[in-house]
Amino acid sequence: MNGAAARMPEASAITVPVPLGDRAYDIHVGRGLLGEAGRRIAALGARAAAIVTDENVGPLYAAALAASLEQNGLRTATIALPPGEATKSYASLERVCDAVLAAKIERGDLVVALGGGVVGDLAGFAAAVVRRGVRFVQIPTTLLSQVDSSVGGKTGINSRHGKNLVGAFHQPSLVLADTGLLDSLPLREMRAGYAEVVKYGLIDDPAFFDWCEKNWRGVFAGGPERDEAVAQSCRSKAAVVVRDEREDGDRALLNLGHTFGHALERITRYDSARLVHGEGVAIGLAQAFRFSAALGLCDEADARRVEAHLAAVGLPTRLSQVPGGYGTVDDILEAMAQDKKVKGGALTFILVRGIGQSFIARDVPVDRVRAFLQDEITPSRP
Amino acid sequence: MNGAAARMPEASAITVPVPLGDRAYDIHVGRGLLGEAGRRIAALGARAAAIVTDENVGPLYAAALAASLEQNGLRTATIALPPGEATKSYASLERVCDAVLAAKIERGDLVVALGGGVVGDLAGFAAAVVRRGVRFVQIPTTLLSQVDSSVGGKTGINSRHGKNLVGAFHQPSLVLADTGLLDSLPLREMRAGYAEVVKYGLIDDPAFFDWCEKNWRGVFAGGPERDEAVAQSCRSKAAVVVRDEREDGDRALLNLGHTFGHALERITRYDSARLVHGEGVAIGLAQAFRFSAALGLCDEADARRVEAHLAAVGLPTRLSQVPGGYGTVDDILEAMAQDKKVKGGALTFILVRGIGQSFIARDVPVDRVRAFLQDEITPSRP
Repeated sequence: MNGAAARMPEASAITVPVPLGDRAYDIHVGRGLLGEAGRRIAALGARAAAIVTDENVGPLYAAALAASLEQNGLRTATIALPPGEATKSYASLERVCDAVLAAKIERGDLVVALGGGVVGDLAGFAAAVVRRGVRFVQIPTTLLSQVDSSVGGKTGINSRHGKNLVGAFHQPSLVLADTGLLDSLPLREMRAGYAEVVKYGLIDDPAFFDWCEKNWRGVFAGGPERDEAVAQSCRSKAAVVVRDEREDGDRALLNLGHTFGHALERITRYDSARLVHGEGVAIGLAQAFRFSAALGLCDEADARRVEAHLAAVGLPTRLSQVPGGYGTVDDILEAMAQDKKVKGGALTFILVRGIGQSFIARDVPVDRVRAFLQDEITPSRP
Repeated sequence: MNGAAARMPEASAITVPVPLGDRAYDIHVGRGLLGEAGRRIAALGARAAAIVTDENVGPLYAAALAASLEQNGLRTATIALPPGEATKSYASLERVCDAVLAAKIERGDLVVALGGGVVGDLAGFAAAVVRRGVRFVQIPTTLLSQVDSSVGGKTGINSRHGKNLVGAFHQPSLVLADTGLLDSLPLREMRAGYAEVVKYGLIDDPAFFDWCEKNWRGVFAGGPERDEAVAQSCRSKAAVVVRDEREDGDRALLNLGHTFGHALERITRYDSARLVHGEGVAIGLAQAFRFSAALGLCDEADARRVEAHLAAVGLPTRLSQVPGGYGTVDDILEAMAQDKKVKGGALTFILVRGIGQSFIARDVPVDRVRAFLQDEITPSRP
């Protein structure tokens, strides 16, 4: 595998700049970028890199990445963690920080995250705190992490009090999204990541949603449409993050579909056999549109169109599609209340006036949410 | 004790501004500030505060602080940790973060560090990472933490690879240095903190060193000189930190006396029964001046004057004063090499051209350090 990296021709890449002042960086999107990672990363000027990966991804790509880095003059060490959400723990943070220090990574050196969202969040957090901050590079290996968690600088681990409650804002110095790596992704994971792609169109880019409807087959098949979908998603997210790096305002729009989605993840106890994050988001997106329509904010035709597209790619859009059930209306409301603060009987929601017309709605009465959910679970609905 | 806080008249305080842009904050220095901490902290606009302290300081002051905060409308919770350097651990970080989350501290709320450097470093780090950053307030209770660790925003814990290797730059929102709390500080700790006070004069403020020579008795006795010494130290450190917040340049001057000092702490295995940090710094300051004089950079009279002042307050200035011995010249050199990188047989040192005239000397030949240390340990020297 090592030799293959060196022999590959230079990959063409789409570059998405993230203009965050002295924390600005580029996202490169393209097929085959892993093979030339060493050259692109060496341009950052470090002398050493600690590669953080998991035991699924590591055996596939870590040796090639290390070889590519070493061919370009960087000393490397590799740290492989068990895959899965349980790895985003205090114990893993200690393990990664100590391993990065053992690898003699200095302030000018790098942590390279090679994996999905779990690896990116954990390695990014370790990079934020080792020596009070070293640079890091993201090489996201899932569609979800290429379009979501690798943009925005949020890093962290889970606490027993909730997910992602301990962490740091720490922007990467470079993101390499090799879309060829997605060829071996299970279809279910591909679909789940695609829910976040669609979300960017629904937030504020109706033309991109049109494009998704026309081009989704190419995204799944791995044509140039895949690169474009990843790049456009990164552009969209970057635009929001640049407006609101520390999540005090507009960044909340990125939560479209997530209030309902997180509640379903909580109800299914984060059991990925039942529901993965993107599936919860897909149902949540469809619900956000149906709820907006029920409130008279959005045309019912838009809600039907969103649902139809998500269903076409094989994503769930209805509570009845949650394997093992979703509990009662009160169960869902309680799960939502854990995520969002209920103030005086009202919730903050991301609602829509149409496709690409989302907005932050404060003071949504809980009673309206309850009535909507009641309507969602009546057998008369399809 | 609770009632006493409320009955105290308003304390007069010296305010030292730390102008770090959108991270600017004030340090208030004065006798009796703890009694009105609630009023000053409530002005920051939080609804809740998690007080982090240790099992020595907590029983003395935490209840009064909590009462003062609650009288001013803040909900409080108190977390008390075992005292001592071993508390700056990953396990303590987890404990404090989870306790802060259990106290339902939100992004607008506060962590309040009530204690010495260990508590400040740990609580500050927890504040930096809980919810990716909440605000924090320092109430330093030792002279060392009032003049050193509470200024500059360095927070962190120790790794098995070394001290303070995992952490964050996180500026406090407010520092309350109640100089009355030092009345109960053991004399040895008071002296050790005073070594850092003297350091500020030696770095770049000869007039402040003159002032120290004349006024040190008032600093120890707890007169207005103590407030002035703490305030002036904070001003000096703040000026350096404002020039170089992330420690890329000038901030290294704060390490005057610390290259030798850290080596001695390492040799004595951080055993505070043998040597505390400030004692190592005192010997290190005297050595930095004698070494500079030996190199012909600084007048011998200045070196003698520094040594005389440190000795007058009861601080050690010679290797022979390290209880239990300091090993060989090679032991000291090896301990120094762990702290500072040796590049091509040369070390980076903070040296002096006189009192208040320190500078960063790169490329100090190890051979010159060795010759100096050899001279230091010959019996002919006093």
